[in-house]
Amino acid sequence: MANEYEEQLMALVGRIDEPDHEAMAAAEKRQEFLAKVPGSLGRLEDISVKIAGITGKVKDNDLKKQCIAIFSSDNGVVQEGVASAPQSVTFSQTINFPRRITGMSSQAKYFGIDVLDVNVGVKMDIPEALCTKDMVTEDGRIARKIVDRRLAAGTKNFVKEGESMTREEAAHAMLIGFEAADAMKKAGIELAGVGEMGIGNTTTGSIMIGAITGVSADQLVGRGGGLDDEGLAIKRKVVGDAVERVKDMDTLGKLSAAGGFDIAAMAGCYLGCAKNHMPVVIDGFISISAAVVAYEVNPMVAEYMFASHKSTEIGYVAAIEKLGLKPMFDLGMRLGEGSGCPIAFKVIEAAEGSMSLMLTLEEADINGGYLEHIKEGHFLDDLDD
Amino acid sequence: MANEYEEQLMALVGRIDEPDHEAMAAAEKRQEFLAKVPGSLGRLEDISVKIAGITGKVKDNDLKKQCIAIFSSDNGVVQEGVASAPQSVTFSQTINFPRRITGMSSQAKYFGIDVLDVNVGVKMDIPEALCTKDMVTEDGRIARKIVDRRLAAGTKNFVKEGESMTREEAAHAMLIGFEAADAMKKAGIELAGVGEMGIGNTTTGSIMIGAITGVSADQLVGRGGGLDDEGLAIKRKVVGDAVERVKDMDTLGKLSAAGGFDIAAMAGCYLGCAKNHMPVVIDGFISISAAVVAYEVNPMVAEYMFASHKSTEIGYVAAIEKLGLKPMFDLGMRLGEGSGCPIAFKVIEAAEGSMSLMLTLEEADINGGYLEHIKEGHFLDDLDD
Repeated sequence: MANEYEEQLMALVGRIDEPDHEAMAAAEKRQEFLAKVPGSLGRLEDISVKIAGITGKVKDNDLKKQCIAIFSSDNGVVQEGVASAPQSVTFSQTINFPRRITGMSSQAKYFGIDVLDVNVGVKMDIPEALCTKDMVTEDGRIARKIVDRRLAAGTKNFVKEGESMTREEAAHAMLIGFEAADAMKKAGIELAGVGEMGIGNTTTGSIMIGAITGVSADQLVGRGGGLDDEGLAIKRKVVGDAVERVKDMDTLGKLSAAGGFDIAAMAGCYLGCAKNHMPVVIDGFISISAAVVAYEVNPMVAEYMFASHKSTEIGYVAAIEKLGLKPMFDLGMRLGEGSGCPIAFKVIEAAEGSMSLMLTLEEADINGGYLEHIKEGHFLDDLDD
Repeated sequence: MANEYEEQLMALVGRIDEPDHEAMAAAEKRQEFLAKVPGSLGRLEDISVKIAGITGKVKDNDLKKQCIAIFSSDNGVVQEGVASAPQSVTFSQTINFPRRITGMSSQAKYFGIDVLDVNVGVKMDIPEALCTKDMVTEDGRIARKIVDRRLAAGTKNFVKEGESMTREEAAHAMLIGFEAADAMKKAGIELAGVGEMGIGNTTTGSIMIGAITGVSADQLVGRGGGLDDEGLAIKRKVVGDAVERVKDMDTLGKLSAAGGFDIAAMAGCYLGCAKNHMPVVIDGFISISAAVVAYEVNPMVAEYMFASHKSTEIGYVAAIEKLGLKPMFDLGMRLGEGSGCPIAFKVIEAAEGSMSLMLTLEEADINGGYLEHIKEGHFLDDLDD
């Protein structure tokens, strides 16, 4: 029986357009005629074509206003011993995001990238002075404080209690992700990333990937933030059992049975970015697990996604194959938070920069008009562009 | 018998310091204590340590003033049929660099990166209105015009004439590279890249790599800009014969016997960057062939080098192993010009940004002073930083 949140969600999920195939064909053609050997810019060419499909514009796409939406929450399943770090880390890192002193947020500050920090279920209470209800400020900017959308003080321990959250909460969490995407759109963001903070979420992430892709627990469970052998064995069993239990459920069923608020919200955020024709970047393992959840709901979402770095977590491979994407780089990163997004933004910008500013051989007109133009003394004008 | 250029060169080559091992040790230690799982930022951590070694500063290194030095010249060996594109491309692309409409220069314009465009031996005459003699303008900026350091109208065809250039010219070309590094230093550049334009230079680059690393012609000759089967066979023979002939010569001997002005100047530029304690980024195949030449002259230069993307040319692997480096990313690029440098600059910036702005657990002081600080209402002050 569908609840109110679920009805809202389904209405939104259906509103994802196909990419603009005409713009993509025109972009491919332009890449072929630019003054270089066709294909010599490698994947930068593919990226520019994909961007054209998302925005409908072949070139001159504005992509400089960037934001990483980060969803923080705790996972009751940590009671089983699946995580190496204490839950207080979710709390302290969530507080440290707006301070811009974490792995992701420090890069965001360095590059002038906004961070939309959403608390969907951190167990400890975050001091009120750090919180806001508004994702977008009155002057139209992404909130600098932590946005309070806490659904509960962490999820339940699904191993003991049979579910992480209610189906209604799962739908609600996804809607919060949609809201974040809408907020980014409203604040003028042109390129988004999706990150997370939640001790225990490599377990829930692994379950979602296993349940949706069909790979076995051995193939998808790694050490997360730094688990020892015993912890790894426990995690494999928790994940394997949960996958068996949830694999035939629908997406909201899977999320409520063994997911997390963070992953549900992230999945909603991907779908919301796609609905808003906003290119969106996947970070690492948790981020891609949520991308796979979004994909199960509506596979069209992958047309709006870019994979940043190859996560060192072994389950990453099954996830990215499911999405039909390829990571842009592999720098051995395994921090989470969205820490792979800033570099991916720069790769996308490099692709768009060359697509927008390169000329075709005809436009460059080196042997005809351009050299004449120089003789007439116009060269310096050109250079002052 | 040493000529005047060679004497100058040898004096400069000896002036490359060891990296600052103390700063590197301190940087490694800081990475260990930053608020993350040690190692979780992967190669970004290694990059920040290497930067510390180059500058002597653990963090807060300014790296935003960036420049790609690009050396253009023609190669007489194209008469043998080793290249798929006509020499007029060297001319037209050299002119198109300051217009910022090529694969590399468009990205440079997009990101606000300077380009130092040096003509060391383009065959065709470049219109005087486009040229300057000064690498740095009167107001201390990198020249926007093409810097005229033309040594000849292209090199000789070493297959027919026994050498590409005189030994004196080889030393002179390397000194031009040093001059470019000094000019960047003078203009306040903090992070450099090295690129090239020169039809036929995958042949000369392959010879340098083969002669210095010892790998066979089969292992290092690819299709360059897009060679057919016949061209590939010719190129393999030209390269294999030349490697045999030059492999026991010293570096200037190799360059004069079968090198190019571009590669010699690039090698000098790497050495000059190292002399100036300036981090310098390698682009693709030609760029790394020149890096290997520089390495043969003084292996310490590798301590100042970063490899950007993995070139698709097969000889790249031997070269990067020789240097003891690892490419940062592989986006299937094979354009040359220095087109891999802008993204690498951003990766280095991401590394430096996180190193500089992240705090250690102790500094973050979440459980002690920071939460007190918030209660006193100071949080918004912090956010306004």
